[in-house]
Amino acid sequence: MDARSILAKKRDKQELSTDEIDFLISRYVAGDVPDYQMAAFLMAVYLNGMTPAETFALTSRMIASGRRARFDDLDRPTVDKHSTGGVGDKISLILAPLAAVCGAAVPMMSGRSLEHSGGTLDKLEAIPGYRTDLSLEEFQRQVREIGVAITGQTAEMVPADKKLYALRDATATVASVPLVTGSILSKKTAEGIQALVLDVKVGSGAFFKDSDGARALARSLLTVAEKLGLSAVALLTDMSQPLGRTVGNWVEVEESVEVLRGGGPADVVEVTLELTARMLTLTGLASDVSSAREQAERSLRDGSAWRKFLEMVRAQGGDTAVLENPSRYPRPKYQLEVKAPRSGSVRRVDALGVGVAALELGAGRKQIEDVVDPLAGVRLLKIAGEAVQAGEPVAVLQTSQREDALPVAEKMVLAAYEFADEPPTARELVLGEMRPGD
Amino acid sequence: MDARSILAKKRDKQELSTDEIDFLISRYVAGDVPDYQMAAFLMAVYLNGMTPAETFALTSRMIASGRRARFDDLDRPTVDKHSTGGVGDKISLILAPLAAVCGAAVPMMSGRSLEHSGGTLDKLEAIPGYRTDLSLEEFQRQVREIGVAITGQTAEMVPADKKLYALRDATATVASVPLVTGSILSKKTAEGIQALVLDVKVGSGAFFKDSDGARALARSLLTVAEKLGLSAVALLTDMSQPLGRTVGNWVEVEESVEVLRGGGPADVVEVTLELTARMLTLTGLASDVSSAREQAERSLRDGSAWRKFLEMVRAQGGDTAVLENPSRYPRPKYQLEVKAPRSGSVRRVDALGVGVAALELGAGRKQIEDVVDPLAGVRLLKIAGEAVQAGEPVAVLQTSQREDALPVAEKMVLAAYEFADEPPTARELVLGEMRPGD
Repeated sequence: MDARSILAKKRDKQELSTDEIDFLISRYVAGDVPDYQMAAFLMAVYLNGMTPAETFALTSRMIASGRRARFDDLDRPTVDKHSTGGVGDKISLILAPLAAVCGAAVPMMSGRSLEHSGGTLDKLEAIPGYRTDLSLEEFQRQVREIGVAITGQTAEMVPADKKLYALRDATATVASVPLVTGSILSKKTAEGIQALVLDVKVGSGAFFKDSDGARALARSLLTVAEKLGLSAVALLTDMSQPLGRTVGNWVEVEESVEVLRGGGPADVVEVTLELTARMLTLTGLASDVSSAREQAERSLRDGSAWRKFLEMVRAQGGDTAVLENPSRYPRPKYQLEVKAPRSGSVRRVDALGVGVAALELGAGRKQIEDVVDPLAGVRLLKIAGEAVQAGEPVAVLQTSQREDALPVAEKMVLAAYEFADEPPTARELVLGEMRPGD
Repeated sequence: MDARSILAKKRDKQELSTDEIDFLISRYVAGDVPDYQMAAFLMAVYLNGMTPAETFALTSRMIASGRRARFDDLDRPTVDKHSTGGVGDKISLILAPLAAVCGAAVPMMSGRSLEHSGGTLDKLEAIPGYRTDLSLEEFQRQVREIGVAITGQTAEMVPADKKLYALRDATATVASVPLVTGSILSKKTAEGIQALVLDVKVGSGAFFKDSDGARALARSLLTVAEKLGLSAVALLTDMSQPLGRTVGNWVEVEESVEVLRGGGPADVVEVTLELTARMLTLTGLASDVSSAREQAERSLRDGSAWRKFLEMVRAQGGDTAVLENPSRYPRPKYQLEVKAPRSGSVRRVDALGVGVAALELGAGRKQIEDVVDPLAGVRLLKIAGEAVQAGEPVAVLQTSQREDALPVAEKMVLAAYEFADEPPTARELVLGEMRPGD
């Protein structure tokens, strides 16, 4: 067996055996297969795809490349949620403590922002002191003790994914269904979970702009999750417009706090409840979606989810006093109001446009090594369905480091807004639900 | 402009601009684009192809990466022949001095064997003392003085091809029409030639097994050659069976000497005359193919081609005394006769089978860095159309370094022989002729 003949097989659209995939991935992680051979392989996979059996073998081998968290003797079911990424997607910050107060253990290892798409770790790091670098032991202990932790992957977990992801990023092979499946499920399985709810985003601000692509990814994720022994379900949710009224890091923490305290934008609440309900039904903590939703709504209303969030932040070194006192919220150095060019109704706010504007302001990363500005971002004062007067502010741009980006971001945000005489029809947030075999 | 977005374009089957190809190749040669990005690009080209305009841009940029030979003030036309490679293909050794005595200047830079396919440089290096490492200045001087030189590429010529070829070899991206076109024509153009005859082999021992693939390559080569300002013509010739009765290095020198002295196997003579005739007509040295063939035949018969060959060998440091005295021919350490399993007629001898057997005996390279055994090879005592008795030797295997490979090679050669009661119909050697635009 040698790397070149494995490449040639994939190049020629032949199915690889488990042994061949094991050989290639394990030798690559060991440094015996060079980056250039793996890069050619990744492009061949991007263009020729992988069968479910190949994708399962890839994912299994990636998991085996590192350590896994273990929660064998826990008295609660372990469950996580994974989103394929979007604009204004702060759901994890709310959902993780919420599912925990509803009886689940949520060992969540999250990612960082890349390009226009936000990252949970960057948002949490906007809370002064919050640690996202828990060791595997600290992570396991915290989940056991308080039922929830949101941290970054430790170096010893799925090293294959770290190495492969950096190479995919450099070789234009990120958006491949089997490679995305391997990356997501290897990391999620290494968390030691029993069940997984997938939030597959569809629309301009998502990885997949159209529902066919999103469904293909959901199908691949569900098929491989089932083979890995995970209970799984996927919701396809709308990412043609941002979630909520904030896009950035600290601004999204603020909005998450609003929701955790029983308020906040209706769309964020709705998607959070739908996803949390699946976490509870999938693990048997609730018998059906509607009773699960009720339980979750109650926990937002009665403050228990909010207290669990504060407990998690405290456990990870974060400054809860800032969170509890809006008067102490940090303020960005520069702000600019974006004004409505006409009167009427906001018809639509394009997710990609707002995401790219936030990126320009410093909220995200153009390259993996970029450093984010926690206070940069966009506040949407007006969202779809709301009336505006010409000259009235529709959005506020914020940045502490890139004052010069304000005019560019202003143009982008203006272009993202669509106005009309009449308000649009109501936005459909959940576009579909899929289970293994669908 | 950045490498990743160029990769993404090729991945998505969009046509690249000349600027984009220039950027990628020049940065790669300079070391600014890493091997892994180029490897992903090569796989994308392998799978998605290139338009003629892209292939021309690639080839031009490769040529520009290094120095070119110049023969501007020469009183004779410069012309070369390139074969896509085969088994027993010693044509260059005969054709180069032959075309030179017919009035052409032949500045030939050749390659080495790889896998089952032979290499002209390895064959010539079987002549004691023969130098294949002429400097560009030595090469130009010799072509001016005696009209012919066969040497290897110097380091300063087409460095892009050297770097790309090594990477293609490691990433299973060798057999791509645009990449092969770029590799061949960049090297040939750098020789400073005005005209080029292409010998595109078809059959089991060739790069392309079927005539469709061979025609596609010929078409690409002719289109790009025309854009580069080269006069070009292609012959499609049969490589389903070896050329002549010898496959290896020194054994092929012996057979070339036979042909240069007016004898040798009919198929080698025929293909040599057809190709040489095209070199003479393409450059205006002959008015038509039949008069060109006559001139070439005369030069084989009257010893002038043989004397030109000796002159070239001498000029490049080779020991002509060995060539002139068959009693001084070197002998391999180990030999094994392969015997006919039945009586009848040889129907066919498979080129790939014999090529792989010669490779096992040490005549070729499995990897670029392997060292060849000049005395290893196969002598075919019986070829298609000849009668055999059961138990009679049909072939002799030779090696000086791999005695242990003899039994394996014996099996391979036996499997390559097909026997029948009746002799086969005559072998068609030239399967087609193509010109730019065909």
